[in-house]
Amino acid sequence: MLSRHLPILDWGRRYSRATLGADLMAALIVTIMLIPQSLAYALLAGMPPEAGLYASIVPIMLYALFGTSNALAVGPVAVVSLMTAAAVGNVAAAGTAGYAVAALTLAGMSGAMLLALGLFRLGFIANFLSHPVIAGFITASGILIATSQFGLILGIRTEGDTLVALLGSLVSGLPGLSPMTLAIGAAATGFLYWVRKGMKPALRRLGLGPRLSDVITRAGPVLAVVATTLLAWGFGLDAAGVAVVGPVPAALPPFTLPSFDPALIRDLAVPALLISIIGFVESVSVAQTLAAKKRERIRPDQELIGLGAANLGAAFTGGFPVTGGFARSVVNFDAGAATPAAGAFTALGLAVAALFFTPHIHYLPKATLAATIIVAVLSLVDLSILRRAWNYSRADFAAVAATILVTLGAGVEAGVSAGVGLSVLLHLWKTSRPHVAEVGIVPGTQHFRNILRHKVETAPHLVSLRVDESLYFANARFLEDYILERVTGDPAVRHVVLLCSAVNEIDMSALDSLEAINARLKTMGITLHLSEVKGPVMDRLERSSFLGALSGRVFLSHWEAVAALRAGQGALPPRR
Amino acid sequence: MLSRHLPILDWGRRYSRATLGADLMAALIVTIMLIPQSLAYALLAGMPPEAGLYASIVPIMLYALFGTSNALAVGPVAVVSLMTAAAVGNVAAAGTAGYAVAALTLAGMSGAMLLALGLFRLGFIANFLSHPVIAGFITASGILIATSQFGLILGIRTEGDTLVALLGSLVSGLPGLSPMTLAIGAAATGFLYWVRKGMKPALRRLGLGPRLSDVITRAGPVLAVVATTLLAWGFGLDAAGVAVVGPVPAALPPFTLPSFDPALIRDLAVPALLISIIGFVESVSVAQTLAAKKRERIRPDQELIGLGAANLGAAFTGGFPVTGGFARSVVNFDAGAATPAAGAFTALGLAVAALFFTPHIHYLPKATLAATIIVAVLSLVDLSILRRAWNYSRADFAAVAATILVTLGAGVEAGVSAGVGLSVLLHLWKTSRPHVAEVGIVPGTQHFRNILRHKVETAPHLVSLRVDESLYFANARFLEDYILERVTGDPAVRHVVLLCSAVNEIDMSALDSLEAINARLKTMGITLHLSEVKGPVMDRLERSSFLGALSGRVFLSHWEAVAALRAGQGALPPRR
Repeated sequence: MLSRHLPILDWGRRYSRATLGADLMAALIVTIMLIPQSLAYALLAGMPPEAGLYASIVPIMLYALFGTSNALAVGPVAVVSLMTAAAVGNVAAAGTAGYAVAALTLAGMSGAMLLALGLFRLGFIANFLSHPVIAGFITASGILIATSQFGLILGIRTEGDTLVALLGSLVSGLPGLSPMTLAIGAAATGFLYWVRKGMKPALRRLGLGPRLSDVITRAGPVLAVVATTLLAWGFGLDAAGVAVVGPVPAALPPFTLPSFDPALIRDLAVPALLISIIGFVESVSVAQTLAAKKRERIRPDQELIGLGAANLGAAFTGGFPVTGGFARSVVNFDAGAATPAAGAFTALGLAVAALFFTPHIHYLPKATLAATIIVAVLSLVDLSILRRAWNYSRADFAAVAATILVTLGAGVEAGVSAGVGLSVLLHLWKTSRPHVAEVGIVPGTQHFRNILRHKVETAPHLVSLRVDESLYFANARFLEDYILERVTGDPAVRHVVLLCSAVNEIDMSALDSLEAINARLKTMGITLHLSEVKGPVMDRLERSSFLGALSGRVFLSHWEAVAALRAGQGALPPRR
Repeated sequence: MLSRHLPILDWGRRYSRATLGADLMAALIVTIMLIPQSLAYALLAGMPPEAGLYASIVPIMLYALFGTSNALAVGPVAVVSLMTAAAVGNVAAAGTAGYAVAALTLAGMSGAMLLALGLFRLGFIANFLSHPVIAGFITASGILIATSQFGLILGIRTEGDTLVALLGSLVSGLPGLSPMTLAIGAAATGFLYWVRKGMKPALRRLGLGPRLSDVITRAGPVLAVVATTLLAWGFGLDAAGVAVVGPVPAALPPFTLPSFDPALIRDLAVPALLISIIGFVESVSVAQTLAAKKRERIRPDQELIGLGAANLGAAFTGGFPVTGGFARSVVNFDAGAATPAAGAFTALGLAVAALFFTPHIHYLPKATLAATIIVAVLSLVDLSILRRAWNYSRADFAAVAATILVTLGAGVEAGVSAGVGLSVLLHLWKTSRPHVAEVGIVPGTQHFRNILRHKVETAPHLVSLRVDESLYFANARFLEDYILERVTGDPAVRHVVLLCSAVNEIDMSALDSLEAINARLKTMGITLHLSEVKGPVMDRLERSSFLGALSGRVFLSHWEAVAALRAGQGALPPRR
């Protein structure tokens, strides 16, 4: 039980010198990568840059204690940082003390929710988020993030949660464009793009080994940070209008307290839930993909606990909401991370950075951090999902399109909610009109097939219907309508037999409908029968009064039903 | 097309003298029954009594033009009146002009929504309301209504939308109890209860014919109205503290205008939608039951149009939201109503009542009307639904219990919303963990059965899984977890075959999951195959890139799959 919820007791016992070496190497590479990223995502979330480092130290350590993935790297990520900015921006002004407290509170609430979902094994509520909704949401978020950061590269202050608002503030800010900022921002973006696409091949062509090329490539963003910081410091570019990060305290993460103000908690409840679920879904899918590569398993319910602990940690140490990041986890995995200890070592590395590195980033241009984010999020933007969804199914396309449009047009919360609502609605709509086939017998066999597709034998007084869906509230009324429609125009009908081989469930609404169908058919002088009812479904029916009221019989096989009812030509007395 | 949306063109053409006679007789009986009911439900909705008559005149006529049921009687009903009082009470104080305008607006919005749902054939959204939720809601509403009317019988003013608030105001009002009101109210309640249960048999014992006994019984409530009005008038009981209806104008329905204030419309949007859907569901189920008795059909989408027109009519003629009532429709049917013209004649009867009868109800005690309502709604209260649901399924029980508790504890809107939300959630939860059976071959046959239930043959390198549910977003992740869990602990596995005979749909989320499963199994050296994929599902898969990436094959039958993979002992090269 204890080692179920504290996986470290399991892998810690088997920890060896070889795994230590692998973990240390992975931690070094991830630390180098995380320093600029953490600073950048803090800015995106509207927080001071050091909060990004703080959000990566204690949370990573707590995840290492409770998480089940050996490769997942936890910390601030782009989409969750954007959602944080949107949620906290609604309750406090950026830069104020209230803003930081609200961000801590959001992290604390998200942590508590994740923990509760994990302890009560409610991870299935993440199922509400269909893949098209997630894909559409991430693409739209990427567009929103890139647009907002584009302002920092131009030296223009952007505002707003929607694409229209962001573009509007970009256009209206154009007269105040800072050419020097643009020069630095464009150069950094170009360089980082080259780092991502062309640096490694170039280093290999220069004769460097694959391992070394890889490490240098990972350090690329740090090169950009160092170079632009030196430029800004050397030439005093902050006086020339280039926004720089400014003074950053050199300290370990502080002890902080989230707010317990009920009004604030009420305002942040929905965003906290959405952040929790989106973060969990993202994180689990990365963790599962990486675990499968080594034929390992993660436990989703325990992942909820790990992420919950990480977010609670962020709330008490000056951070903001965190989750498992895709890019950094892949880097961690590729660099050979063997256990969650790699994460703990990364946290130590970042703690060293927070103590000794922070004084040197005073002159780091914000445009460089914006460039880091833009290059990272553009890989998230994938509009091809629209085409793929269109080709595959109109319902999925509608869900993707609605999510993208509403996210861009009305913000992240509205976007996710619209996508989830629409996909549930479409699912209910689809299953509310199940495929019902009228079947007849294939001559010379005991097989029944659709009368519209096959040459089959039927009898005028006997209607055989195969329902290809479980019967539940969404389609209960449909079946009523369908059967009554079928028999009212056909005075010859004496028997209706429902072939239930594809019915995995009959809920109480469907039971009520069956009772209504039975009663209405009875008043018309028509007998209702069932055939091939599955065991668990039959168990339930036996606990209700339906079988007592049923005008006809329940047949083991449809063949038996038709044989009996044909022989009797409708005169068969009901038997139970 | 025209006669599709104007059913009167159809039945009007076939109208005969015989149907005229039947319709007139039914109209007479229903008119007598509706006069006290309409006044009472107006009071329940917080409206002046004449509004109840107005809400029964033009709306009935419009329904007769557009509706498809020959027996449905439209007008104010208990549950919808309660919902109206709750919704309008939130935006205006009872008795003010603003209250009446808000009620008109609510009727107008509900009418417009019903009309839109009908024209766009969106009636399926009523499927969101499962039968347990409706049953629970009606029972809880009946309790709320009876409690509030109990105050009128005691002569105590009750306030509040919840059971606690109503009981609280009853208790705190007890010192002001009016003994004379209680005497009249208790007598009226007792008499009406006897009318309902014992009057008809008593009349038959006196030797009256069944038809005459029936008509006199229907007129029972009118007798109570006349007797208590005469009492109150003769003894001047209004001076003794008995609340009476007071002056009522003698007039035909006035022309009124709903409000188009955006703030009011926003406030009433959710209640209007709930009232529309609850009213529609109730109405359609009554109409279908009665139609089936004569082997007739109603058209649900056209019913939406008929009810929408009726509510729009109510909005412009001094009414409030209306729908098809259960009791009055049954009376209409039993009295022999043959066409919707019976409704039109009822409307004429009520118009005559509004013109000539209203001056005489000045001294009608409100306690008499309260008694009418209490006797009517107590038949709606059916707590046995809790027991039946508990016996049948825990999920349905949870939905009923939540609906009843939240309706009683937090009001009608919260109750319906909680019930709908919970049943959708429970449905997703149930289908998110579908039944997956590992199957093996029954020796000597080509049949595959669950290895846990039957003695079957399996091969260690081959896992056959039968999924008993459509694959969609709610269970996509479950399947990923299930399959990875199954294979990670078993190094012998080389092939996984999914038997898809019960899979009626694979949506894009499930497709993504299948792709992830395929890729993860591939990295483990395991091949994924499908078998018995249904035609429409296969059509979709062929439009995606999945089949190209699939490491294994798609087999027509599971038998074929097992035969091929056993023969190759895992060495079979993938073929497509």
